[in-house]
Amino acid sequence: MIKVGVVGGTGYTGVELLRLLAQHPEVDLVAITSRGEAGTPVADMFPSLRGRVALAFSDPASAALEKCDLVFFATPNGVAMQQAPALLEAGVKVIDLAADFRLKDANVWEKWYGMPHTSQRWLAEAVYGLPEVNRKSIRKASLVANPGCYPTATQLGFLPLVESGCIDVSSLIADVKSGVSGAGRKAETHILFSEASDNFKAYGVPGHRHLPEISQGLTLAAGRAVGLTFVPHLTPMIRGIHATLYARITREADFQAIFEQRYAKEPFVDVLPPKSHPETRSVRASNICRIALHRPQNGNTLVVLSVIDNLVKGAAGQAVQNMNLMFDFDECTGLSHVPVLP
Amino acid sequence: MIKVGVVGGTGYTGVELLRLLAQHPEVDLVAITSRGEAGTPVADMFPSLRGRVALAFSDPASAALEKCDLVFFATPNGVAMQQAPALLEAGVKVIDLAADFRLKDANVWEKWYGMPHTSQRWLAEAVYGLPEVNRKSIRKASLVANPGCYPTATQLGFLPLVESGCIDVSSLIADVKSGVSGAGRKAETHILFSEASDNFKAYGVPGHRHLPEISQGLTLAAGRAVGLTFVPHLTPMIRGIHATLYARITREADFQAIFEQRYAKEPFVDVLPPKSHPETRSVRASNICRIALHRPQNGNTLVVLSVIDNLVKGAAGQAVQNMNLMFDFDECTGLSHVPVLP
Amino acid sequence: MIKVGVVGGTGYTGVELLRLLAQHPEVDLVAITSRGEAGTPVADMFPSLRGRVALAFSDPASAALEKCDLVFFATPNGVAMQQAPALLEAGVKVIDLAADFRLKDANVWEKWYGMPHTSQRWLAEAVYGLPEVNRKSIRKASLVANPGCYPTATQLGFLPLVESGCIDVSSLIADVKSGVSGAGRKAETHILFSEASDNFKAYGVPGHRHLPEISQGLTLAAGRAVGLTFVPHLTPMIRGIHATLYARITREADFQAIFEQRYAKEPFVDVLPPKSHPETRSVRASNICRIALHRPQNGNTLVVLSVIDNLVKGAAGQAVQNMNLMFDFDECTGLSHVPVLP
Amino acid sequence: MIKVGVVGGTGYTGVELLRLLAQHPEVDLVAITSRGEAGTPVADMFPSLRGRVALAFSDPASAALEKCDLVFFATPNGVAMQQAPALLEAGVKVIDLAADFRLKDANVWEKWYGMPHTSQRWLAEAVYGLPEVNRKSIRKASLVANPGCYPTATQLGFLPLVESGCIDVSSLIADVKSGVSGAGRKAETHILFSEASDNFKAYGVPGHRHLPEISQGLTLAAGRAVGLTFVPHLTPMIRGIHATLYARITREADFQAIFEQRYAKEPFVDVLPPKSHPETRSVRASNICRIALHRPQNGNTLVVLSVIDNLVKGAAGQAVQNMNLMFDFDECTGLSHVPVLP
Repeated sequence: MIKVGVVGGTGYTGVELLRLLAQHPEVDLVAITSRGEAGTPVADMFPSLRGRVALAFSDPASAALEKCDLVFFATPNGVAMQQAPALLEAGVKVIDLAADFRLKDANVWEKWYGMPHTSQRWLAEAVYGLPEVNRKSIRKASLVANPGCYPTATQLGFLPLVESGCIDVSSLIADVKSGVSGAGRKAETHILFSEASDNFKAYGVPGHRHLPEISQGLTLAAGRAVGLTFVPHLTPMIRGIHATLYARITREADFQAIFEQRYAKEPFVDVLPPKSHPETRSVRASNICRIALHRPQNGNTLVVLSVIDNLVKGAAGQAVQNMNLMFDFDECTGLSHVPVLP
Repeated sequence: MIKVGVVGGTGYTGVELLRLLAQHPEVDLVAITSRGEAGTPVADMFPSLRGRVALAFSDPASAALEKCDLVFFATPNGVAMQQAPALLEAGVKVIDLAADFRLKDANVWEKWYGMPHTSQRWLAEAVYGLPEVNRKSIRKASLVANPGCYPTATQLGFLPLVESGCIDVSSLIADVKSGVSGAGRKAETHILFSEASDNFKAYGVPGHRHLPEISQGLTLAAGRAVGLTFVPHLTPMIRGIHATLYARITREADFQAIFEQRYAKEPFVDVLPPKSHPETRSVRASNICRIALHRPQNGNTLVVLSVIDNLVKGAAGQAVQNMNLMFDFDECTGLSHVPVLP
Repeated sequence: MIKVGVVGGTGYTGVELLRLLAQHPEVDLVAITSRGEAGTPVADMFPSLRGRVALAFSDPASAALEKCDLVFFATPNGVAMQQAPALLEAGVKVIDLAADFRLKDANVWEKWYGMPHTSQRWLAEAVYGLPEVNRKSIRKASLVANPGCYPTATQLGFLPLVESGCIDVSSLIADVKSGVSGAGRKAETHILFSEASDNFKAYGVPGHRHLPEISQGLTLAAGRAVGLTFVPHLTPMIRGIHATLYARITREADFQAIFEQRYAKEPFVDVLPPKSHPETRSVRASNICRIALHRPQNGNTLVVLSVIDNLVKGAAGQAVQNMNLMFDFDECTGLSHVPVLP
Repeated sequence: MIKVGVVGGTGYTGVELLRLLAQHPEVDLVAITSRGEAGTPVADMFPSLRGRVALAFSDPASAALEKCDLVFFATPNGVAMQQAPALLEAGVKVIDLAADFRLKDANVWEKWYGMPHTSQRWLAEAVYGLPEVNRKSIRKASLVANPGCYPTATQLGFLPLVESGCIDVSSLIADVKSGVSGAGRKAETHILFSEASDNFKAYGVPGHRHLPEISQGLTLAAGRAVGLTFVPHLTPMIRGIHATLYARITREADFQAIFEQRYAKEPFVDVLPPKSHPETRSVRASNICRIALHRPQNGNTLVVLSVIDNLVKGAAGQAVQNMNLMFDFDECTGLSHVPVLP
């Protein structure tokens, strides 16, 4: 059993993390902080946790997080880079579910996130928490930057191709669709039920913060700079990301075999048989990523379909997977929920 | 570990049962039958079960169900009364998730279900599987009639009042709303997405089959015939039942205390603080029933709000709870999932 | 053609009013005010109006509303009672879509709305804008208080029975379900897509502001004080109200005939054949109210089902109907849209 | 006034056509046929039409369609090519909303639709009913092949670029998302509410029937064969298509100006300002197509966003637009509904 704290548990990433941690056999949840909700029992805000999480939100100042073995930050961007360093220096391990430590180049980070980066030292230390790429480093990390939801689905879908050297990495296209919970729990007009229901739209086409994150990961995998067009869309469902990925073939290969081999030992990546169409509900509330490969009309373009639950493999579940690695638990501990369908 | 078979696993009750059984530590799932789908891997029909259920659907004739310790029937009404008796006589325990053994009076059953009842002997033996009422009998039962979804939410909401003798049982009103999965997985026009989405309607107001089931249960609890108006509605959500129940007070009492005491030891019934409004999502994918009590404007009418997940406490979860009782497992085994919210 | 102004056009009631007025042949829309959005083209906020409404929001101070023939207030409660009197005194007719002039008793209003009523003189003058009850008075009115959405569906459903003297008016029950647009367009957490979708809940059971409004109307119709239990619910759909109404019979009558006769000449009330189940989508985007009557199991309780589009017959459409009456246009002008199904 | 018949009015295309025709000032609706529903009042099946369409479905054999001026076929593929020729030879004009006359090459048609084409003579005569391309021919046509929903949104989005000669037409990508009503009203499991709600998936990636239709249109516009990857997706909303289109620039130009000029005089195509993100709800229940153009990160790839209501501009509305052209009515007659938002 390890002592775990959560900073900022009032958003969707936070409540999902609490759902998973409450069922994790190795976790003793000792503090959940929220400046705005200090004193409120967690289960009053999230009635799904009644009888399962007895804690109240506590004030960050008095939470004694430095006595934890691990602290998760489920906070807005910019918080972890301020507060995590003190914990790290006290020997507490940290997983940041926000974006503070995802981009290795602080200049790029500052451009996309619009604020100065205040912890470049720890930015250099941080390990990007995509286990399918960085499993070894994660095991030894003190600070893990948990990937974004779009970047998880997109990278897992593109990685085998990019690594294979068989596609044109200068013209990648990622047309990605997200459920509304990906936009967070802060009350904003465009994500009201009456705005987002029975509706579909693209957004952020000129530039979305997940673009540099995906590019960074794929560039590392390719060994050279990739060119990526990334178009996110808002879909009227609560959970789920569906990435539809397009790549032009430059060298023939058995692409299905490339995917199957790449992920043969991955516990949370499921490569479907050829010509499958994965549905987001097939991974709902689970940590699984399902991927299918197509070559329409036997042409020159590969189409990869990749689905995850944005709150699980795209956020809280992947964070727990990283925790399992960092503390040498079985990687699947507390993550074996069967997807909820229908 | 017990050997378990499932007859008719292609509907929503069936797939939900498989989700729960696949995660149950005491269950060895040995057969899932379907006449129409014999030979099809279960995970091909329900991709959420990929990697978790390795069986294919088998033909009922060849499934050797008589070697099971327990067989669940997740079949249309009328099947279990034909097929269960042979299993029961072979010493196999049976839980029927359909309606065949729910109504004690075969004449009433035949009137509402429009066919002759072919197993009145086993009808007499069957125990109505509402643990909050019949826990002791369920432990010893060979055949359990698993309650309907509306009857579970409605009876759990009304029982403390009806038992208390403080309300007029001749004028009960149950205005109940169900998610669309309650209508099953058979393709019918009125439950198409484009018909049922962004829409709300009542149905079956002249008479619904769950009316006599609820009346039977409440009449037993009251010790005399109850009068019930039952109006079901279809709500554009996948899972969930919300019962809004109305009763007229005939004798003053501490009604909140009556509820709290009635359910104090129940692991799956959660009585909320006064003036609460339970939401169906607060029990999504879990076996919990949450109940709140109101007395609007301090008037003469009590309003009880009762929510369940129709596929769990209203079907498959309650069936597993009954299995746990029948085989002397801890009652909560395999049923401790935290609700999925959002 | 009349000159029409709209005060507060940024909510759902406002945009729906603009949709209807933009297609109304007798209306010249001259000003739409919004303090917060002054200068913004209306069609920038509501792209559905591109090419149809060329106005920008204007500042209320400079809008010269006193030159209008009619001004609609689609504002939060408390605004019209402040601003309408000056317009009325300048000879402008006013329709208030908020609640300021709905309750005749200022004390009751103040209790439920939590602020002093500042225009009791005009409260006395105001006509409650339910044409099926007050058509004659509306024709001559300077100030119309447009009814609430729940009150419209509930009163139209109960009125024939209450007027008939055949039911017990002391024990009326209204179990009413609303689409989420009824909660407005202000960003609040509980109406976010990820909160309100795939979910169902009651709210305001201890007391909702529409309760005194309904009671006032039914009391007038009954000729004596009615007793009403009113339970509103939030349903995961954008538009629509479904009222399920319960009344106990005290005297036998041909209830179906009572409904048919009561509404025989009403252009916007459609009494369905016996045993029908009206769906909210059957009136979507139209000004129609459809009503069906049931007497389940031939018992003592009548069940009335009444559906409207909360934004049309429950708000903007009824306001246009009132405008048509006030200016002696054909009552159906601009309101003949066929419901949008699916 | 013209006499109009509709063959096959029981699907979503049919009921939408009836909604529009019921409000069209130049149309006298004289017959709606359905073999399966002959004798049923249309308004019994579609309660939205109560009071607006008094006809019952009639048997096709006895419908005297040859006395109509125009007959719409809203039938499954393969019906119109059997039944339309006799009407055409009797001088009746025909608009087919199915696919029978869309592909000029009968061999291609037979390959994709899996049946022999029985009316190649009329196939040669048919005019493809996309007014933005074929307005002049449509005016003189006897037989119009109404375009598919995906092809309408996709062609309108690609046409200005393809005609401009500034993009690589060999590598077009169309990632298109449809509401569920596009899959029709026939009861099938995968479009049940409990399957399609809260879910997102691609389908038909290996090959969809709308691919050759789009390719045919774009090839004509380009003057040479285009290469197109077309991936359709099912979105949990009732109505709407959102096409996200990708094209590589081969020659610099003012692309925004190209779109604005191309559609300057089109009554139903609305080119949005640069960097806009059109939403499907902004055209809900209207005949409008809204288009926005992006060049993300000022790179080499253009992204076009194009939205329509699949049942209106993607089916029934475009058919009425074609009717208006064929009978020399104002092109917008009966099609000026303001979109329904929210």
